[in-house]
Amino acid sequence: MMVLISYDVSTIDKLGRTRLRKVAKECQNHGQRVQNSVFEADLDYSSFLKLKNRLLKIIDPEKDSLRFYYLGNNWGKRIEHIGIKQTYNPEGTIIV
Amino acid sequence: MMVLISYDVSTIDKLGRTRLRKVAKECQNHGQRVQNSVFEADLDYSSFLKLKNRLLKIIDPEKDSLRFYYLGNNWGKRIEHIGIKQTYNPEGTIIV
Repeated sequence: MMVLISYDVSTIDKLGRTRLRKVAKECQNHGQRVQNSVFEADLDYSSFLKLKNRLLKIIDPEKDSLRFYYLGNNWGKRIEHIGIKQTYNPEGTIIV
Repeated sequence: MMVLISYDVSTIDKLGRTRLRKVAKECQNHGQRVQNSVFEADLDYSSFLKLKNRLLKIIDPEKDSLRFYYLGNNWGKRIEHIGIKQTYNPEGTIIV
């Protein structure tokens, strides 16, 4: 299933900047960066839950936020990109 | 229909920072900010096209990007929020 993951991590202190790096790295390991803090991950449910749990352990829920958008299987029709960075074929690029 | 709008605007120069402010303002006028550069807008198709056209006129497609995710009508099931900022009822808050 395709999941869009977006995050806001507070970077006003060093701990926040560390969390930001960790969140970004975790998302990069399992999805495709499409914008600065927006990733798309095409994962089976089990892999997605593992990723989600890892992200939950990294963020500070009182300072940061995560949003997951479950785009389903017909996700190709749901996405439109304009401007820099090409759309992509996730099957070809995702590291699971 | 519910549309998720995310953007990356290059802010390395003053023109970019102006574009960023304009994009954010346009999205704020028609949607709900859910993260720093992520908005959700529940608009009819005609209003959405107008918003999209305004955004296209603001961005520099060689430096910035816009992504639209068409979440459809059953969008409530598609979204999960974790951490700061509450989820919201868009009918109650959107200014169209």
